[in-house]
Amino acid sequence: MECRRWTPTSSNERRIEVGVDAPAYNKRMTNLNVPGLDLPAYMREVGERARAAARVLARADAKAKNAALDAIAATLIRDADKLLAANALDVTAARAAGNDAAFVDRLTLQASTIQAMAAGVRQVAALPDPVGAIGDLEYRPTGIQVGRMRVPLGVVGIVYESRPNVTVDAAALCLKSGNACILRGGSEAQHSNHAIAACVHEGLRIAGLPEDAVQLIATIDRAAVGLLATMDKYVDVLVPRGGKGLIQRVTDEATVPMIKHLDGVCHVFIDEFADVEMAVRIADNAKTQRYSPCNTMETLLVHAKIAARVLPPLSKIYIDKDVELRGDVEARAIVPQMKIATEKDWYTEYLGPILAVRVVPSLDAAIEHIAQYGSQHTDAIVTDNYSNAMRFLREVDSSSVMVNASTRFADGFEYGLGAEIGISTSKLHARGPVGLEGLTSQKWVVLGSGQVRG
Amino acid sequence: MECRRWTPTSSNERRIEVGVDAPAYNKRMTNLNVPGLDLPAYMREVGERARAAARVLARADAKAKNAALDAIAATLIRDADKLLAANALDVTAARAAGNDAAFVDRLTLQASTIQAMAAGVRQVAALPDPVGAIGDLEYRPTGIQVGRMRVPLGVVGIVYESRPNVTVDAAALCLKSGNACILRGGSEAQHSNHAIAACVHEGLRIAGLPEDAVQLIATIDRAAVGLLATMDKYVDVLVPRGGKGLIQRVTDEATVPMIKHLDGVCHVFIDEFADVEMAVRIADNAKTQRYSPCNTMETLLVHAKIAARVLPPLSKIYIDKDVELRGDVEARAIVPQMKIATEKDWYTEYLGPILAVRVVPSLDAAIEHIAQYGSQHTDAIVTDNYSNAMRFLREVDSSSVMVNASTRFADGFEYGLGAEIGISTSKLHARGPVGLEGLTSQKWVVLGSGQVRG
Repeated sequence: MECRRWTPTSSNERRIEVGVDAPAYNKRMTNLNVPGLDLPAYMREVGERARAAARVLARADAKAKNAALDAIAATLIRDADKLLAANALDVTAARAAGNDAAFVDRLTLQASTIQAMAAGVRQVAALPDPVGAIGDLEYRPTGIQVGRMRVPLGVVGIVYESRPNVTVDAAALCLKSGNACILRGGSEAQHSNHAIAACVHEGLRIAGLPEDAVQLIATIDRAAVGLLATMDKYVDVLVPRGGKGLIQRVTDEATVPMIKHLDGVCHVFIDEFADVEMAVRIADNAKTQRYSPCNTMETLLVHAKIAARVLPPLSKIYIDKDVELRGDVEARAIVPQMKIATEKDWYTEYLGPILAVRVVPSLDAAIEHIAQYGSQHTDAIVTDNYSNAMRFLREVDSSSVMVNASTRFADGFEYGLGAEIGISTSKLHARGPVGLEGLTSQKWVVLGSGQVRG
Repeated sequence: MECRRWTPTSSNERRIEVGVDAPAYNKRMTNLNVPGLDLPAYMREVGERARAAARVLARADAKAKNAALDAIAATLIRDADKLLAANALDVTAARAAGNDAAFVDRLTLQASTIQAMAAGVRQVAALPDPVGAIGDLEYRPTGIQVGRMRVPLGVVGIVYESRPNVTVDAAALCLKSGNACILRGGSEAQHSNHAIAACVHEGLRIAGLPEDAVQLIATIDRAAVGLLATMDKYVDVLVPRGGKGLIQRVTDEATVPMIKHLDGVCHVFIDEFADVEMAVRIADNAKTQRYSPCNTMETLLVHAKIAARVLPPLSKIYIDKDVELRGDVEARAIVPQMKIATEKDWYTEYLGPILAVRVVPSLDAAIEHIAQYGSQHTDAIVTDNYSNAMRFLREVDSSSVMVNASTRFADGFEYGLGAEIGISTSKLHARGPVGLEGLTSQKWVVLGSGQVRG
């Protein structure tokens, strides 16, 4: 699951399946599109249900959670035709609304996508259960034994856009980590999300876990996002997944703590002591393996002493792949085909086939450039010099720092997390790819035998 | 360093020593009390200085940081008379302003307090440096090696009240963890804080570290707190230390992430399988060892099957110590001297010699009570039943859960953290006592040998 960008849209959303007293609840939900709905009351009800489900889920053992995940995967496969039919409604509506091909592509499910979704859920089931693990129980001089137990965060809110697979990916990760979740998917994927949520609820039901553990927000009102982002009482952490516009909007409203990333202005620095062939290979891959992910390189920094050897072969590759190059004066002196880079370019996350190129006089200048213009996401150095590698690792303050590897590796699967709920450029709590562990917290555990404080 | 409560006050604060270009800066600061000061510009300058100092501090090795801490401790001892003289000004003003004895007590420094402050700083110097530690570097199937490096958070904002020792405690912890800090102490301790900050700056200077690593906010304007709490660009985390009023006020304003706790409604549950003598000892200690700390018990829950054996001897102890007891019907049936507890009592953090007492029919009822009325701070069970102990540990969702030990142990020193910057009842990032580790984050480190993503 990679962080690609997409553009938020807005339209209607439909009501969702809900817990055990579904008939009465759905009756109310049916009226959600009626003007005059008490949105705060509805959101409060969602929050209370999530809170109650979270307490049950926190106590659920790995066996029950895995049974639910396996049942969800099986239901997705069994209901593949239903999912495709629901998705076709969304795709037709999106085309009719004039959305572009890339948008429709992100929205579209295929038989293979559904297989992949189910496989992803089974992968999450196969991961070790993080909940309940107690680490480092140590005796203190007073005789008490002190350690920390990993526990769920509680209720996770997730706001996302058009990709329907997020519905099940997020639900699976929250479920495995013992958290209830409240999902607010893009309205353009409403039929798909609803169909997927039905599979999730069936899986939960089969395993005897509360369906309220995974709730889809049912209202068409965008104010629901604002309410979700300020429901501190019911929501422990909010994960916005989507384009910068969405994330900035949620951030502006949120009082609930967030796991988020805003920008991925990633750098590769080719040091004077780099192996030229390796540098070319990594810089090529970091930019062109895919253009839209947040861990794709946006600015290439090249040490002045190696620029004349690295830039000509590298530029040829980029130009052959139709990557637009924007260089500073020194870079353009070597590769005249480059356009002129402006100050703004150093700050820009292109998410497309454009690359800013700057020649720097030293490692210090490279680190300084990254500190000034970067977004603390992922930055890499290519070098064979030990001291420079260590300095880059220590001094670049980004969620991922790399030596002699492509920035494209900054990913939950590549890091061995099994799956990721998102990538965080925040420093508190979780940084970089966030997996199951990032959806948990640790509480202190004290085992005594009657000790009191003197 | 324990979390005691005190009442916020407000009055003037004086200008502080600042970095290397102190004369020009102080010249401006001198004018801070003049109406028309550009407070946002001042705060921005403080923020920029902190950001710049943070980058230097993040790279400082343990040797330099420890040298600064040792020099700070030595300077505090050397300047003890100056500190006492400065403190006397604050104490005189506080008395003249009609503050009560407890307030003046918290404000007052003595020779022994200064010795303790210096000893505290030396203790922090003796702790292992958390920065730069790399954990779990593991090879992935692609050949890259992935691990996590512990790094400072960056800039820590600390807002506190009348205790002057927080100035040096907080500075020492931030310094050791490689963070710059911005301190906003209580105006009633202004002379003391200024004198302590001068010692801190001298220590930093001696060790060749930037004085801007520790800045005291110099303005009298309370709006400075609001600005500090919203300076996301310059402040990575905010730690409010003080009474509930202060913390709530800062929380309402803050957009910067916080490490905080609001309430300490702590419980001891005496299970039916408790050893009566141990239960009495722990419940006595948890309430009466000190009344004001946040980890002091506020509500005692007693299993119905043991209440008649536990409550009489325990009540006698409490009554002898002038603790007012407020019980439910069942508790009062056993100890008629108890007043009637109301619903409000179950929510109340008395911070004084009052205790709410409730008889519960089961472990489930105890866990339910804590979930409903508790503040997720610290809760203990007294029992000799293995299953009940395990259920309590797993199911009570508090930052510290204990078996057969007094809640009073919930403390950074008791837990072996060496020192604490505060206690967190939040779930994200740090929970419970927060020491050096809680002032750091982990970034991902990738060591490759030319790998690119396929």
